[in-house]
Amino acid sequence: MAQPSAPSIAIIGAGALGGYFGIRLARAGNPVRFLLRSDFETVKANGMDLFLSDGSAIRLPDPSVYREAEAIGPVDLVIVGLKTTRNHLFPELLQPVVGPNTILVTIQNGLGNVEALEALFPGRPVIGALCQIGVNREAPGRIRSFVPKDGFVLLGANAAAGGEVLEATRQLLEDAGINARTTPSLGEALWRKLMWNVPFNGLTVAIGGKSTDVVCTDPDLRGVARSLMEEIRLAGNALGHAIEPDYTDKLLGFTDKLGTYMASSVLDWMGGRRLEVEAIFRKPLEEGTAAGVAMPHLATLTAILHGLGTRE
Amino acid sequence: MAQPSAPSIAIIGAGALGGYFGIRLARAGNPVRFLLRSDFETVKANGMDLFLSDGSAIRLPDPSVYREAEAIGPVDLVIVGLKTTRNHLFPELLQPVVGPNTILVTIQNGLGNVEALEALFPGRPVIGALCQIGVNREAPGRIRSFVPKDGFVLLGANAAAGGEVLEATRQLLEDAGINARTTPSLGEALWRKLMWNVPFNGLTVAIGGKSTDVVCTDPDLRGVARSLMEEIRLAGNALGHAIEPDYTDKLLGFTDKLGTYMASSVLDWMGGRRLEVEAIFRKPLEEGTAAGVAMPHLATLTAILHGLGTRE
Repeated sequence: MAQPSAPSIAIIGAGALGGYFGIRLARAGNPVRFLLRSDFETVKANGMDLFLSDGSAIRLPDPSVYREAEAIGPVDLVIVGLKTTRNHLFPELLQPVVGPNTILVTIQNGLGNVEALEALFPGRPVIGALCQIGVNREAPGRIRSFVPKDGFVLLGANAAAGGEVLEATRQLLEDAGINARTTPSLGEALWRKLMWNVPFNGLTVAIGGKSTDVVCTDPDLRGVARSLMEEIRLAGNALGHAIEPDYTDKLLGFTDKLGTYMASSVLDWMGGRRLEVEAIFRKPLEEGTAAGVAMPHLATLTAILHGLGTRE
Repeated sequence: MAQPSAPSIAIIGAGALGGYFGIRLARAGNPVRFLLRSDFETVKANGMDLFLSDGSAIRLPDPSVYREAEAIGPVDLVIVGLKTTRNHLFPELLQPVVGPNTILVTIQNGLGNVEALEALFPGRPVIGALCQIGVNREAPGRIRSFVPKDGFVLLGANAAAGGEVLEATRQLLEDAGINARTTPSLGEALWRKLMWNVPFNGLTVAIGGKSTDVVCTDPDLRGVARSLMEEIRLAGNALGHAIEPDYTDKLLGFTDKLGTYMASSVLDWMGGRRLEVEAIFRKPLEEGTAAGVAMPHLATLTAILHGLGTRE
């Protein structure tokens, strides 16, 4: 099935987003190997399915699944979809799949992931992906997209990657049916992504684990969401990332269309998993505050999410 | 048991605070009548107990308990201890016990209670009480105090009450072993009380229903608690209430000593009762904002508590 020129790909952390990328890339003819933990048996037995918002579906009846990174071995491209709370496992999970020429793509939330990959693999090309993709993992191997045409991915490269690797990666994703664009500034892409993650992952957990439409339709919560987005936007600006003022309204409009979407943090919370407080909330708060931007809404939300810990 | 000159007293809403006042006032020889709902049978059978932090206890073996306000009839002094979420029951619960000369004392949380009583009983003396008293209702009729000497009460009168009624009420409480002081400004007393209620009722619920020491000992949460207190203090100042800057530290120090105290809102929350969002959070936010004070921490907390609704 694999084309002769198709790069070998490993998906490390095949949750909702990792599953989405892997299913589309495999269906397009690339040899994709999934590293799975708890989902291994179910996916091995039942395959993987991506259900699209238009009612169609993409099925992988027999995906290449692995329990151990060692069994996957070095690949051409690694997609890192781990929760940032598991970034301490990078050495154990990534060293076996990263060879001298491997391209690393992190589709993770928040700040600090590209830096952590660069520290572990100095000189390697690292691409950060802002994923504005509305997908949930309904069950092991079952991914559902919530938005027309699945949303989009914005890719930014570190210095070692450069324009050529970036464009090749974009083309690879585009050929797999993923709407992928590039940005000259990875930092800008990450801060744009935070503008969504902070209010919609944070507030939906803080109000007890509810869908994004609850935040969008309640005047108080929508107001606070907007204030949080503005704090992040101004912090991004202060750090040299030109994010235009009307991006806040664009993101709110995007989220209005998601309907009863459950943000990943809500699913983490309901599932008793740790919240990604450091990467999504505390690092932006620290970096923005250090850049001289007042972030009282974010300070309040961060302290509350930190205080929540995990669901009892 | 009652002294000839002792005023008749009704406790409407005998939760932790109402129970505390009623037990102490009855023990001092005043004829106290308690209006009870769910606790009626247990208290009727077992009496009431106030456990003090020094290990001693005050027991009322046979308190005068009532199911209906009509059966209590008009009294000299009414202590209103209802949750503010039940203020719509004022006419039903208070009109039977309020005569032409009845003094009304509200020991409730938040803003708007004195005004609601004045609207219902025009021209009557109304006293607002800032209760810095660390008590919990452990079980029906069982109240436990958490602080040495039980904390204190600060009383302020409306115009109809005036200095004489205010001082007589203070003396009545003092004679019952309640540490009572007066203030010439009821508004100031209420805003001082909000400085505690907003962070310690609000944040402890928002972090999943935890004791006040969790907020006091976590650097992030303590910092946000302090910011909330400062917002309230500055709003109080803007509204003409001179609250000194170091009152924030005083309250934090008081709360440090409470240990694993559960704020009333946490107990409400755990018990599936509605949070007092309007009186404790939204009204101060609206009044402070209207007075020109930026209250971003309070806006965030208010929206989150409002979004939480009741515990499922």
